[in-house]
Amino acid sequence: MKLSKLCETISQAGFPAALDGDDITVCAVNTLEEARPGEISFLSNPKYASAIAGTRASAIVTENGIETPPAISAIRCDNPYAAITVAIIAIHGHRLQPQWGVSEQATIDPSAKIGTNPNIAAGATIAANATIGDNCTIYPGCYVADGATLGDDCALYPNVVIYDRCQLGNRVTVHACSVIGEDGLGYAPHGENWIKIPQIGIAILGDDVEIGANCSIDRATLGETTIGAGTKFSNNVVIGHGTKIGPNCMFVGQVGVAGSATIGKHVTLGGQVGVSGHLEIGDDVQVAGQSGIHNSVEAGAKLFGSPVMPIARAKRALSVVRQLPEWTKRIKELERQIKELRDKVGCETVEEEKVDGDKVS
Amino acid sequence: MKLSKLCETISQAGFPAALDGDDITVCAVNTLEEARPGEISFLSNPKYASAIAGTRASAIVTENGIETPPAISAIRCDNPYAAITVAIIAIHGHRLQPQWGVSEQATIDPSAKIGTNPNIAAGATIAANATIGDNCTIYPGCYVADGATLGDDCALYPNVVIYDRCQLGNRVTVHACSVIGEDGLGYAPHGENWIKIPQIGIAILGDDVEIGANCSIDRATLGETTIGAGTKFSNNVVIGHGTKIGPNCMFVGQVGVAGSATIGKHVTLGGQVGVSGHLEIGDDVQVAGQSGIHNSVEAGAKLFGSPVMPIARAKRALSVVRQLPEWTKRIKELERQIKELRDKVGCETVEEEKVDGDKVS
Amino acid sequence: MKLSKLCETISQAGFPAALDGDDITVCAVNTLEEARPGEISFLSNPKYASAIAGTRASAIVTENGIETPPAISAIRCDNPYAAITVAIIAIHGHRLQPQWGVSEQATIDPSAKIGTNPNIAAGATIAANATIGDNCTIYPGCYVADGATLGDDCALYPNVVIYDRCQLGNRVTVHACSVIGEDGLGYAPHGENWIKIPQIGIAILGDDVEIGANCSIDRATLGETTIGAGTKFSNNVVIGHGTKIGPNCMFVGQVGVAGSATIGKHVTLGGQVGVSGHLEIGDDVQVAGQSGIHNSVEAGAKLFGSPVMPIARAKRALSVVRQLPEWTKRIKELERQIKELRDKVGCETVEEEKVDGDKVS
Repeated sequence: MKLSKLCETISQAGFPAALDGDDITVCAVNTLEEARPGEISFLSNPKYASAIAGTRASAIVTENGIETPPAISAIRCDNPYAAITVAIIAIHGHRLQPQWGVSEQATIDPSAKIGTNPNIAAGATIAANATIGDNCTIYPGCYVADGATLGDDCALYPNVVIYDRCQLGNRVTVHACSVIGEDGLGYAPHGENWIKIPQIGIAILGDDVEIGANCSIDRATLGETTIGAGTKFSNNVVIGHGTKIGPNCMFVGQVGVAGSATIGKHVTLGGQVGVSGHLEIGDDVQVAGQSGIHNSVEAGAKLFGSPVMPIARAKRALSVVRQLPEWTKRIKELERQIKELRDKVGCETVEEEKVDGDKVS
Repeated sequence: MKLSKLCETISQAGFPAALDGDDITVCAVNTLEEARPGEISFLSNPKYASAIAGTRASAIVTENGIETPPAISAIRCDNPYAAITVAIIAIHGHRLQPQWGVSEQATIDPSAKIGTNPNIAAGATIAANATIGDNCTIYPGCYVADGATLGDDCALYPNVVIYDRCQLGNRVTVHACSVIGEDGLGYAPHGENWIKIPQIGIAILGDDVEIGANCSIDRATLGETTIGAGTKFSNNVVIGHGTKIGPNCMFVGQVGVAGSATIGKHVTLGGQVGVSGHLEIGDDVQVAGQSGIHNSVEAGAKLFGSPVMPIARAKRALSVVRQLPEWTKRIKELERQIKELRDKVGCETVEEEKVDGDKVS
Repeated sequence: MKLSKLCETISQAGFPAALDGDDITVCAVNTLEEARPGEISFLSNPKYASAIAGTRASAIVTENGIETPPAISAIRCDNPYAAITVAIIAIHGHRLQPQWGVSEQATIDPSAKIGTNPNIAAGATIAANATIGDNCTIYPGCYVADGATLGDDCALYPNVVIYDRCQLGNRVTVHACSVIGEDGLGYAPHGENWIKIPQIGIAILGDDVEIGANCSIDRATLGETTIGAGTKFSNNVVIGHGTKIGPNCMFVGQVGVAGSATIGKHVTLGGQVGVSGHLEIGDDVQVAGQSGIHNSVEAGAKLFGSPVMPIARAKRALSVVRQLPEWTKRIKELERQIKELRDKVGCETVEEEKVDGDKVS
């Protein structure tokens, strides 16, 4: 694709772009480090500007004001990350799915309703009374259980399992080996035994949800577990039963949310973040990786730590933790100097109360 | 079902219940928030009593002493959580499995032994010398490897994998995409290379074990990894090779236990708890989410933190961590005041030893 | 196998071994606790030497200097862990895979290239233009997508998914339900919505890599995610897009590494360790379980904590955290004593600045 044409496409997508250099043809998008001649790369974070010097790319998408070598054509745009996204879509497009139609080796119950233009592979199973919308792609090994429904334009990658009666909206993508709607950890204690509570609720994924690989999203005990429209999960994310997650959230890998939590819209949880059950997280909250949330959180908070604190406080507090071995010495020295002073000045000595650490616990 | 009949059923299950209001008929159990007219809900935690005001449920299971609106019939019981469990089972029952008999598209080795009343789906594989007990349900995509055994009344949801020679007791349920008996991380170092140690042990799951989705339970290098009878796991739980877990434990999502650990009976581990290898955890231990256990723990301990502390101590210590930025100021102020005092009183100034943080590491 | 023969085999493998006791025949390797008469066990960590007293094993592999009961034959070797590895391989061997040849119930695209001596099960799928090397074993439910390549002597356990164009080297083993090359969490923000960036890169696993069960290894957005030769992962490990991992690393269960990280050779990450994106970890770094790495780390570091510190410092700092409740009392007492001293000596009272905790955040 010619760079002039690419500029036009990027501008039309809403991100005005201008060509700075020769109007060459590029065949692929790649990283600065891995690009070969004839490829286009990008720099969105000026921090990494030095990487431009070493690249073999023939063109680069970047901001105004970033210097580029004269031999490399530049596409200048205020939002290079958006621009390269448009470029990747224009040059490479989204994944082309294999075309199976409806394989004769798929197992489809006669009572299932299948929309137009189905693409269902050998080894996929669509159970009784399930509904599959139009233009859905279902890879081998997927299991869509009794009464489950998929909207239009969904993709289930290999070995995805949708439990009975769960509902997926339109344009939902679930990556390989993820499970939607398994029973949650619902048991009533009876002495030391656990009596299973039938998990009669369901799980609902809104439109445009994308779920990574090896995720597990519990059905509700009663009612619904919900994942809001436009929310994106990375891999091995676990959601407990009855939890409600708003639209446009982003959960990084290995996030775990316990049951009956309520999470607002556009919430970002970093990798391995854990959220306790029965609490509320407001809109637009951002939580750094490996943090632990044990209490409700107000909208807009930016948090870190286990348990979480406001991020600025967490950084300071955790840097003090690192210095605690030195603090031990400082406090002992203070105690020594005060004793010396008291002796000199003539205060009565306080009977030192032996602190018994174990009493606190 | 009539409320009077439901009261009788709950009472017969061992939880005396009394009807307070009209003897109406209810058709389903639901949450207070999501219930519609004609449905019954419950309140087990008085903390949430205010939710009763807004419910559309026609009946509610709750304790004596909780006020309910006159228009809502109540079933009063000292243990509303147990009572609603009985109600859910009575009204909804447990999941009805699809009835495949033995599908002709299942792959079953002639040497496998299959019990009476089998329910084995298309796309399931039962390998050589495997044994399946009576009344087992095996969904599509499951693989029961050579010499593995299942007891009676087991259910393997789609894409569950049981490695060779592993053993499941009676009434074991494994949710979708979980793996039982894969090789553990067993390698002998040889310079910088890792030489694989054949993992010749097995994994054994006791009676009434239920395993969530996407769990991974290693076989032992030698001998057995064991999960005790009645133990329940949520999703994405990982158990290392050779670990022994007692009966009636409950592990919340993303718990990880390293190899060769020994865990007692009725132990509760919160979500994302990590347990190091080669240690012992006593009976009835309870550990809050995201905690890290690096040393053996005595029976009955209630723990939190990484590394864990007794929970009361952990809450106090971690609340101090949050205040450490202020402590920095307090200690600096103490040091300033002491210096001032010493100058005034006439102590010799101690040559301040520069603390070099990096020396400690 | 006779012990004399076993000694010879161990010595030939490079670990000189000597027989101390009767030259009996052993039929299996087992743990000290679970061994039966006729079996051989081992002790590599002298800390557990007391376990020898209770064993029923007929022979034991251990170091010189460890006392063994006269009734038990010993094989003495400086490296008993390596020696028992050789013994397990000699007596038990590696897993014998079922022999399917190429099953007629496997789905193999005509354009796929299959090497010599294939072993591809019913229910496995090899998609268009995929390449499978010689002597590969592919279990049921595996999906090798378009253009993916496997080297020679690979094993994919049941339900493994290899996404399009990803590349596995020779002797790569992937355990059940792991996913290689799924799309990473790549979206461009557009207001509160997320626009999917096509993930056009791939994932590459080097020779002799072994991946546990339920792992998820993202493909790169552009370029390659790479796992170096000889690296071993346990279960439920998650690797973000574009991350480069060196050879001979060992990652314990539930490790999570975000995208665009660079990890050197022979790095050991304990269970549940989290690594942020866009950072570098040097060679031979060792990180204890549940630690969090937020910044680049130099080669050879031994780390612990979240965020990580050098391990010796972390142990001291975290033991102080445990004592913080007592510290509160000590500092309050210091403040009280200093006030008393100041009053006595006649310093002016400083107007106490009220510390407002929330200001820090």
